[in-house]
Amino acid sequence: ARGVVHIVGAGPGDPELLTLKALRLIQEADVVYYDRLVSPEIISLIRRDATRVPVGKSKGDHSVPQTEIHARLVASAQEGLRVVRLKGGDPFIFGRGGEELEAVRAEGIEVHVVPGISSALGCAASAGVPLTHRDHAQTLTFVTGHAKEGGVPDLDWPALARPAQTVVVFMGVDTAPVIAEKLVAAGRAPETPVAVIENGTRADELRVFGTLAELPFLVEEEGIRGPALLIIGEVAGLPAEQGRIASIV
Amino acid sequence: ARGVVHIVGAGPGDPELLTLKALRLIQEADVVYYDRLVSPEIISLIRRDATRVPVGKSKGDHSVPQTEIHARLVASAQEGLRVVRLKGGDPFIFGRGGEELEAVRAEGIEVHVVPGISSALGCAASAGVPLTHRDHAQTLTFVTGHAKEGGVPDLDWPALARPAQTVVVFMGVDTAPVIAEKLVAAGRAPETPVAVIENGTRADELRVFGTLAELPFLVEEEGIRGPALLIIGEVAGLPAEQGRIASIV
Repeated sequence: ARGVVHIVGAGPGDPELLTLKALRLIQEADVVYYDRLVSPEIISLIRRDATRVPVGKSKGDHSVPQTEIHARLVASAQEGLRVVRLKGGDPFIFGRGGEELEAVRAEGIEVHVVPGISSALGCAASAGVPLTHRDHAQTLTFVTGHAKEGGVPDLDWPALARPAQTVVVFMGVDTAPVIAEKLVAAGRAPETPVAVIENGTRADELRVFGTLAELPFLVEEEGIRGPALLIIGEVAGLPAEQGRIASIV
Repeated sequence: ARGVVHIVGAGPGDPELLTLKALRLIQEADVVYYDRLVSPEIISLIRRDATRVPVGKSKGDHSVPQTEIHARLVASAQEGLRVVRLKGGDPFIFGRGGEELEAVRAEGIEVHVVPGISSALGCAASAGVPLTHRDHAQTLTFVTGHAKEGGVPDLDWPALARPAQTVVVFMGVDTAPVIAEKLVAAGRAPETPVAVIENGTRADELRVFGTLAELPFLVEEEGIRGPALLIIGEVAGLPAEQGRIASIV
């Protein structure tokens, strides 16, 4: 049999936010390589006799290097297996799906990508924060807040500070203070609304609303350690309930 | 019974890209108000005895004004019905879901938003174009190419022309020539790769790859009339197959 690799988005956490296609593929797979960010409820939907292999990455714990993940996907497909690479959110939005696609295709193996609900879309829906809005945001920008140890994310602050724009920051909890500082320095108003959403769409979701000036304190005081998403822009001020909103678990 | 409104993303077209939650809700609903962009295969999954109401919008045919849609959602919920508002893609990305959420909530009606696979994510996965990539794109920007008759979209061209960025243009087919012109004038290289994806994830999907300089001719020569998505940035140059790729229907 010829092997095949599907790089599949598992969505933001709520198992009901899997697509029908993702569910079918994890039930057809012989082996599933999954990120630690994928929730246990979703892992439990994998076909019972499939091999399940966790391959990172929890925060600060890159147990399996990216090149090793590539090698394992290729090796399994070359054995003729139906391989699923299951990733949190969407594979093509800060998910390194592009690198995995290239690596597998370079070996002449059949490979497909299945989109997933990005955590940005999941968190926005859950929090009632429209990412675009005729009156408030005609542009939507996704960036990552990741930076080298103690550093500043390498972002285009003047562009991100422009008005009528929603900025969504992935992996931005650790660098939230410097992100707020840089955006204000570049001209974004300190009173710009922000939302911080931890574990979005999961049973233990926590949402905190405030302003850009307050962002460092919001993250600190609520003890948010991620995975969390920052939504910065006027749209974050639209939900009727502001402040701190925790799900009852 | 108390009525409830769910504003639900139907995804980009492929019925398998519905979420499990969207499928459940359209099978539970008493009435479904749907956009014309939602594919017939998805409409056929609605519970057989539910009322199905098309409410626009096909291109240039805004048969039901937005305020009328709001009034109908509210009226149905006030009758105690389970109401689904089914929208193409994701409700919160250029979908006017925010306005519908506000209008329904303002009447004190229970309302929830269910994210969907945005056409941007669907088209990217289908075309094998990673929207972000460590080596090519650390920023991802979504804009709409919509403009008043014969006009120029009101966009921040210098910000969109910055490097290491993927720009996704929704509803950009009609204004593709002026978008290309403005981006090049603002400093984006004419040889920047672009992908135009029509009917992404559907059986009649058409993908055309080229450069920013070629963009006006690509759209014209292929007779692309939308719904189509433009992806502009180095990542559009990554798929091994370039040129014109049509699905066999």
